Amino acid sequence: MVIWHITMSLDGFIAGPEDSMDWAVREWSDEGANTRDIEVDRSPIADEVMSSAGAILGGRRWYEAAERLYDGVEGIYGGQWRGPVFVLTHRLPDEADQKSVRFLSVPLAEAVAAARTAADGKNVVIFGANLAQQCLREGLLDEIVIHLAPVLLGDGVRLYESIGTEPIVLTRTEVAATGQLTELRFRV
Amino acid sequence: MVIWHITMSLDGFIAGPEDSMDWAVREWSDEGANTRDIEVDRSPIADEVMSSAGAILGGRRWYEAAERLYDGVEGIYGGQWRGPVFVLTHRLPDEADQKSVRFLSVPLAEAVAAARTAADGKNVVIFGANLAQQCLREGLLDEIVIHLAPVLLGDGVRLYESIGTEPIVLTRTEVAATGQLTELRFRV
Repeated sequence: MVIWHITMSLDGFIAGPEDSMDWAVREWSDEGANTRDIEVDRSPIADEVMSSAGAILGGRRWYEAAERLYDGVEGIYGGQWRGPVFVLTHRLPDEADQKSVRFLSVPLAEAVAAARTAADGKNVVIFGANLAQQCLREGLLDEIVIHLAPVLLGDGVRLYESIGTEPIVLTRTEVAATGQLTELRFRV
Repeated sequence: MVIWHITMSLDGFIAGPEDSMDWAVREWSDEGANTRDIEVDRSPIADEVMSSAGAILGGRRWYEAAERLYDGVEGIYGGQWRGPVFVLTHRLPDEADQKSVRFLSVPLAEAVAAARTAADGKNVVIFGANLAQQCLREGLLDEIVIHLAPVLLGDGVRLYESIGTEPIVLTRTEVAATGQLTELRFRV
């Protein structure tokens, strides 16, 4: 299965202006108010997605945000996950691949296939709006798991940008509440 | 209490392009797939909001959409609700007020006060994105009740348009599932 895993604001943004994620970090950390004190491993759905992930496929913009936010991809999932990370990009970096990050400059379907192979029967988790939207349009995405934060951002990176096509109807398969986050799982 | 009551797409739109609401009507009607067969009175949260509503305050654009969609404001809530409806507008219509609709061209706070008085101790329900966002910014809104539809629209009327201000953090007080709709209640 190929799963897009994201934290989203109530008004449909997965990053604020200038890729800011402080609003999401606040929801997931102890910095929030008392009722907001949750951690990744206290969210059964996030925990399940993490532990069933065999590989991660992200976009370049996500990769650069992760470098800033988590001090590198090793910091995603609170540093609790280890495995192959693929980054699909038009601009291959000069430096050699890091030990756990492999840069790819191939068609999307090939990148997904490479991540699937590396996942070895486990799931592929997608990070990055642009990449995930392309997967959705090309029929390469199986599930979307959303942690909905009770925040109105008003601007930023949108979950889904129209390309003039018909609405996409999903099927919700799971709903749960963890602290102030509402956790939603959809089948594409 | 002043409550904004809406159906929203998963990606944060409360109406599609050209104010289209067919995606929402489908979620609320028997036209959908079997698993989507729900009606307003089978949603406890929608039912509670409706039955505790003493007056409705809507914007002009909402009013015109209601005329098209429901054949007039008498058709809202499936025709099950009766009471005073106020429409705040910059352009007062030529025709006299209809028996159940009163047009107002006053400052927002005055319109909310008029609706509160008419509600006589019950709640005021707000319809229309523009009006509701103004209420939110002026501190006139107490609650937001959202029926989240598992649909990606990609374009249309957004729940919340930024005016360059800080994110607004809400508190979720209720979450439930009715058919494919996820029902969320927030305190502002």
